Amino acid sequence: MSRSGSHSHRVRWWCLIAAVVAVWVQQVEGVWPLPQQLHQSADRDCLSPQRFSFTYGRDSAAQTGCSVLDAAFKRYFSIIFPDFTTRSGLLIVKTRGCDGYPDEDSDESYTLSVSEGQAVLRSVSVWGALRGLESLSQLVYQDDYGTYFINKTEIVDFPRFAFRGLLLDTSRHYLPLHAILKTLVSFNFNLFQLAAKATFLIFTFHPFTHIYTQSDVMRVIEHARMRGIRVVPEFDSPGHTQSWGKGQPGLLTPCYKGSVPSGSFGPVDPTVDTTYKFMESLLKEVKFVFPDSYVHLGGDEVSFACWQSNPNVRKFMEKMGFGKDFTKLESFYMESIMNMTAALNKTSIVWQDVFDYHERIPQDTVLEIWKGEKYQTELSRMTQAGHRVLLSAPWYINHISYGQDWRNSYAVQPQNFSGTDEQKKLVIGGEVAMWGEYVDATNLSPRLWPRACAAAERLWSNEEKTLNADLAFPRLKEFRCELLRYWKYVCNYSL
Amino acid sequence: MSRSGSHSHRVRWWCLIAAVVAVWVQQVEGVWPLPQQLHQSADRDCLSPQRFSFTYGRDSAAQTGCSVLDAAFKRYFSIIFPDFTTRSGLLIVKTRGCDGYPDEDSDESYTLSVSEGQAVLRSVSVWGALRGLESLSQLVYQDDYGTYFINKTEIVDFPRFAFRGLLLDTSRHYLPLHAILKTLVSFNFNLFQLAAKATFLIFTFHPFTHIYTQSDVMRVIEHARMRGIRVVPEFDSPGHTQSWGKGQPGLLTPCYKGSVPSGSFGPVDPTVDTTYKFMESLLKEVKFVFPDSYVHLGGDEVSFACWQSNPNVRKFMEKMGFGKDFTKLESFYMESIMNMTAALNKTSIVWQDVFDYHERIPQDTVLEIWKGEKYQTELSRMTQAGHRVLLSAPWYINHISYGQDWRNSYAVQPQNFSGTDEQKKLVIGGEVAMWGEYVDATNLSPRLWPRACAAAERLWSNEEKTLNADLAFPRLKEFRCELLRYWKYVCNYSL
Repeated sequence: MSRSGSHSHRVRWWCLIAAVVAVWVQQVEGVWPLPQQLHQSADRDCLSPQRFSFTYGRDSAAQTGCSVLDAAFKRYFSIIFPDFTTRSGLLIVKTRGCDGYPDEDSDESYTLSVSEGQAVLRSVSVWGALRGLESLSQLVYQDDYGTYFINKTEIVDFPRFAFRGLLLDTSRHYLPLHAILKTLVSFNFNLFQLAAKATFLIFTFHPFTHIYTQSDVMRVIEHARMRGIRVVPEFDSPGHTQSWGKGQPGLLTPCYKGSVPSGSFGPVDPTVDTTYKFMESLLKEVKFVFPDSYVHLGGDEVSFACWQSNPNVRKFMEKMGFGKDFTKLESFYMESIMNMTAALNKTSIVWQDVFDYHERIPQDTVLEIWKGEKYQTELSRMTQAGHRVLLSAPWYINHISYGQDWRNSYAVQPQNFSGTDEQKKLVIGGEVAMWGEYVDATNLSPRLWPRACAAAERLWSNEEKTLNADLAFPRLKEFRCELLRYWKYVCNYSL
Repeated sequence: MSRSGSHSHRVRWWCLIAAVVAVWVQQVEGVWPLPQQLHQSADRDCLSPQRFSFTYGRDSAAQTGCSVLDAAFKRYFSIIFPDFTTRSGLLIVKTRGCDGYPDEDSDESYTLSVSEGQAVLRSVSVWGALRGLESLSQLVYQDDYGTYFINKTEIVDFPRFAFRGLLLDTSRHYLPLHAILKTLVSFNFNLFQLAAKATFLIFTFHPFTHIYTQSDVMRVIEHARMRGIRVVPEFDSPGHTQSWGKGQPGLLTPCYKGSVPSGSFGPVDPTVDTTYKFMESLLKEVKFVFPDSYVHLGGDEVSFACWQSNPNVRKFMEKMGFGKDFTKLESFYMESIMNMTAALNKTSIVWQDVFDYHERIPQDTVLEIWKGEKYQTELSRMTQAGHRVLLSAPWYINHISYGQDWRNSYAVQPQNFSGTDEQKKLVIGGEVAMWGEYVDATNLSPRLWPRACAAAERLWSNEEKTLNADLAFPRLKEFRCELLRYWKYVCNYSL
């Protein structure tokens, strides 16, 4: 938790140019994602990079030394004025209220008032201040002579959903640390999920097989925290675990061909005690490394053929009275893992398969929808059962197609399903997924940006004000340029 | 022309490691594009980067000072041994036979023989030597201990088609010079087309509108020449010329609404003398800048609505006896431009529209097919009429889709159409097109590579030996790694 009382931050500038020669009305297309309320006038001030400074308000609970904001001031200075360096050498000192982690209850609201030589940013938490700085940075523009301007602006803003996630698949292809850090650019996403399907993430180091070290992970977490982003790991089981078997003999189910082992292995073996001991020690390490109170336990796409072939598994099924229904075995396993997770004071997120096969899911478990067909029906059923839900299915943006396919992401309406208002509230957000079958460091960025921005706006902004993709387009084009300048590319409106 | 007699080049190495400990047979998957004949044995030599050197054979017509090969030796040394630098400071001195430009008659054949501590590369021209060096570089591999190896190998190789092109669209989005130079990596493409649809390329310089200078173009041409690649510019008219109008008042047809000009402009105005004077001076400048004897004149996608609306154009149609058939007007214009080009001793390439609308095309004009539907029928018709043809339609790889879509490019059979053997020979090659509606420097490389490699192999290699994409796949994966190492990426088999 990071509420640190009321903050207010002032940005002051003085203009070097005495007379503004331009007479036509010019301003930015807007802010991405669109603030809940935004009023801009044609009145504008010019900004002088040499005289521009961020300062903490006198009444602010956070003051110089607040790690998150000191770093953000420095970062946003160079985003706004890429050719200048901030003159004040900011000290990053840990102070109360600023060295916490964002969580699901973090208040990300802010107000921003720009007029006559100063901007005042007010927020309840540092995380809200970060969102406001992002908007502020997008309000500044240059004219053809290179002079910086900002128009008189009033913003009142808060997110529509608390969970606005971005999933990176670090297992199907190795993503080097720098690619992960570069991806954490925020843009008002606040949840970052590292999915470890099929690779045993984090706890081993091997330069040849490209596994992350614990210190890599710590660096990702801190980099994310400074941007108000939570990091939730996914340890998918009992399926998608082929590579775990290499490091942990006896963990996977030996598949059989007739009455003899075939030599290949299937999902995690849910019939032996050692499996649960291993998973418990894994989850304890996860708790130690990841500060977030959520952990994603996977539970998707379990193939039953190997379990079915194994005589020990069949015997176990009989003993437990599961008959021939392997979904019961999967449920049995997932329930154990979810209970373990609860005992460690962590909340589980699981893929929809667990709900589809199982009725006794702990009430606070978050269900995530990944199957594209009929996700509205699934939203109805899950919320009807009283579960909180994350929507990912329509945002599997690793699936590319030719042209402006961001429009598909933009058209998604996460609460447009048959259900009561109470049910709608159980949709706590969504997640853009960048699965890695065909993605590595060479194509991650162009496949992710600006396409992910469409979902970012859907999850942050007022739906009624953002229904029309054609109206959003000029704003998205402009925002893409902000992204490119940030990455030192020439902006060129390729969308 | 650059035939400089017979060349032979020796590569010598001595191994630092006395005993080879590996006992299993290891070798590279092969070479991309696949050589016409390749025989590898399990016998291998280890290579010492410290002792490795390229030397000209004593009987070679080219010797030290041959710009193309000296530079290629240096380049391939660092491709083969990325962590080492070549010790010999090579002097680039212009000598006869080495400072020419590749052309359609360039002999790109070579033989490569690797055995017992040396490799002998023989070719008729320096361009063949470049192709051989590319293959040689792909034969070297490292074991897990980092030692370099090469297996005993015999290669006899030559290209299937003389025109193996790659089209970059430099107009719809500006591509910075470094992105163009990076794209000229060769990989046995030998034709590079810069398409200037809708931007008036080359002759003006404006930092804000991102136009190339003449010296930028010279740099591209020289960079390409050093890799045995021809540079052919496309100046597309009479359509796709909107931006030309800005620099050249009176060039475009004023469109009419009823009896008054609407204020908008259509294709080039083919009814006025000034148009032809302008095109002639443009083509003279093109001749001055581009050494290649081919120039692409476009001629595609002309919309007739604006011509039809203009009373002067209608009057001209009447005078010429074209009736209401505007394809005749387009043909009239294109014929004039093609004649101009011929008078400058340049050969024209035009898009298929010109053939579709016109019967009197100069016999040596090359026709390029861009329409996806029924391109086999078009191949039949064009070759039946005795024209040389380039195939581009199935290789519009800016059109992306999810998954391994390189397989579509690989499945193309350019000579699989109904026609005689003589007709088949008129298919002189093909061109991979990367149109720029959604492409700029941020996504050019991942959209182009390794997908363009599929067409590169189809255009170079024996079709019978490369029919099976599944067999090609491991070789393509390995080749992708070569590409990535070249660009300093971690190789990770993302395909």
